Amino acid sequence: MKTVTCIAPVNIAVIKYWGKRDEDLILPINDSLSSTLSTDYMCSKTTIMVSPTFKENRFWLNNKEVTFDSERLNNCLNEVKRRASPTCGELLQWKLHICSENNFPTAAGLASSAAGYACLVYALAALYRVEGDISGIARRGSGSACRSIYGGWVRWNKGTLPSGEDSIATQVAPASHWPEMRIIVLVVSDDKKKTSSTSGMKRSVETSEFLKDRAEKVVPRRTDEMIEAIKSKNFEAFAQLTMQDSNQFHSVCLDTYPPCFYMNDVSRAIIEMVHAYNEYKGSNKVAYTFDAGPNACLYLLEDHVEEIVALINEIFPPLAVDATEYFRGYPIHVNSSKLQEVLQLKKHTPGCLKYIIQTKVGDGPSILSNSSEHLLTENGLPKK
Amino acid sequence: MKTVTCIAPVNIAVIKYWGKRDEDLILPINDSLSSTLSTDYMCSKTTIMVSPTFKENRFWLNNKEVTFDSERLNNCLNEVKRRASPTCGELLQWKLHICSENNFPTAAGLASSAAGYACLVYALAALYRVEGDISGIARRGSGSACRSIYGGWVRWNKGTLPSGEDSIATQVAPASHWPEMRIIVLVVSDDKKKTSSTSGMKRSVETSEFLKDRAEKVVPRRTDEMIEAIKSKNFEAFAQLTMQDSNQFHSVCLDTYPPCFYMNDVSRAIIEMVHAYNEYKGSNKVAYTFDAGPNACLYLLEDHVEEIVALINEIFPPLAVDATEYFRGYPIHVNSSKLQEVLQLKKHTPGCLKYIIQTKVGDGPSILSNSSEHLLTENGLPKK
Repeated sequence: MKTVTCIAPVNIAVIKYWGKRDEDLILPINDSLSSTLSTDYMCSKTTIMVSPTFKENRFWLNNKEVTFDSERLNNCLNEVKRRASPTCGELLQWKLHICSENNFPTAAGLASSAAGYACLVYALAALYRVEGDISGIARRGSGSACRSIYGGWVRWNKGTLPSGEDSIATQVAPASHWPEMRIIVLVVSDDKKKTSSTSGMKRSVETSEFLKDRAEKVVPRRTDEMIEAIKSKNFEAFAQLTMQDSNQFHSVCLDTYPPCFYMNDVSRAIIEMVHAYNEYKGSNKVAYTFDAGPNACLYLLEDHVEEIVALINEIFPPLAVDATEYFRGYPIHVNSSKLQEVLQLKKHTPGCLKYIIQTKVGDGPSILSNSSEHLLTENGLPKK
Repeated sequence: MKTVTCIAPVNIAVIKYWGKRDEDLILPINDSLSSTLSTDYMCSKTTIMVSPTFKENRFWLNNKEVTFDSERLNNCLNEVKRRASPTCGELLQWKLHICSENNFPTAAGLASSAAGYACLVYALAALYRVEGDISGIARRGSGSACRSIYGGWVRWNKGTLPSGEDSIATQVAPASHWPEMRIIVLVVSDDKKKTSSTSGMKRSVETSEFLKDRAEKVVPRRTDEMIEAIKSKNFEAFAQLTMQDSNQFHSVCLDTYPPCFYMNDVSRAIIEMVHAYNEYKGSNKVAYTFDAGPNACLYLLEDHVEEIVALINEIFPPLAVDATEYFRGYPIHVNSSKLQEVLQLKKHTPGCLKYIIQTKVGDGPSILSNSSEHLLTENGLPKK
């Protein structure tokens, strides 16, 4: 019997992944680039147990048993086993119990599958003592999961080989490189049924007139510029590229037929707030980026956190809830602000935002060796 | 003393104009194509009076005197005078009084400047007996005004000459060509401060990565396909091209830096309703198109008007107002509907739509010769 427990981070792309060239191998049409968020406040946690006594493979996800019969899950598992250490022996024959959970709402649309698959693959690789890069294995679970295998600033190289062997993630800079960087996640209330990323990007590849141009011309240039901006800690350039790339991704979604919409009126109000604030400051102090959902991630340096949080608090007031429910993550000091009037921005009805998380760029996945951290009991059943 | 009164129609583009190659001459970077709406329910009306007794040029717009010192207005006036009939004589020396009004709210964002400038130029051309095409003159007032000079289905040829002489409108098919076509305008409630078309398209030309590709590759192909669809009355193709081109225009706006947003959550709900309805019907029965604002124009054949209006009435219920206030234009018979449930579309709060206008494709500008139609008294002052 053997048990491994890991945690793995969420990542937030500043150059977006949108469009596959191979649906099965999950090979992208362009490079992408993200920061890995600290696991202190948002992470996936997975416990994997193998035992000769287990009768079948079982999987519990967020406190609910789910089928093990998932192509993506089995692609990851088979690939890890193929690269398992020769010393594993009969371990490879034993059935697995896997228990996985996110410490943030899956429904919030916060890249939970990226963290989840990175965590699963990292734990499996530890279990079977896989050597070398495993980001390509995580990619088989969920494309952007490959970026959560490393900490700091991470590039997913699209690769050119048909096998996908070179479609892996590499670290551009460690988390310690730009310690002043902060990320504020604005979780937007939304009841809209959304198009999944998988089906949305498939439709974009099939119908968008713009996507090819983006993948072939715009992203290669922007990725170089983004790496340069990160390496030289040029926030002005970093912010502009981040905002332009987020908008271009959503622009491609709108150029898709039928169109996919991920942002809503609150997302748009956040965009307008950021541009108004930057204009008021005379240079880019905050950047927004939106994935396939209405939530905003703001990148900014620590010096501007208090002012921007005060502004957000004014424009998007919380419902009358406990402040500790509304402001999560690294503690935020909320001042009062008169900026909303100065910037002539509309106050929204309370509750447009569900909550706000302040976090930082952080490290990659890690193993938790203390058995109290395991999500499974010694019998291989969920503790919860 | 001489008085001319004209009316001119609104036009709704199905291939969008977005981007100038010459700001002063108002020369576009791509062709565009529109239908001219019947003047029965939406039009501009202009009375122009010249008299040797007038001391100065004066202009009343929507019951308010405004400055005559507008570059666009004077560009139009000078161009008309340059091409005036040699028989005009001293008429050309007399000062003008101009009174103009729209019979629909300017604020509704319904191409009021296109109708307004087409009307002004048509009236001026009648006054000074200009011969030949005058769409190029209307273009100097507001680009898309050139398309309102003709009835039916109208193409604005971008032209290639630096002088702009070949940047004029031509009729593709008369209004009588496709008599079953109906247009339903959905006026969406919105309090957002919007970016003007002029500054929005300037910013797109300067910053969008996609606009060049659209203008050079996509629009030329789509314009040919659209003309073919209109000539063969192929609604299926017409509808897809119309929706794709509207979305692509807004996609370019989003790829602009900072981005321009013209559609809001209600606009998006209309788009989703149309795609759900078309999917339910098994083919395209309705097409949406959005200009630089949140209002939708739906194109559809008369057979589907009742069903789609019933659906709209369910999804976007009116505030408790007089039905004649909510349903305008050609009379609409509003049935009850169960489609909203079938299509699983969300009911919106009453009042999301301000009102609904049903109209048709119609003819170009015309002269109203009855003096009771004049907006100016014999003294040259507004009747209102």
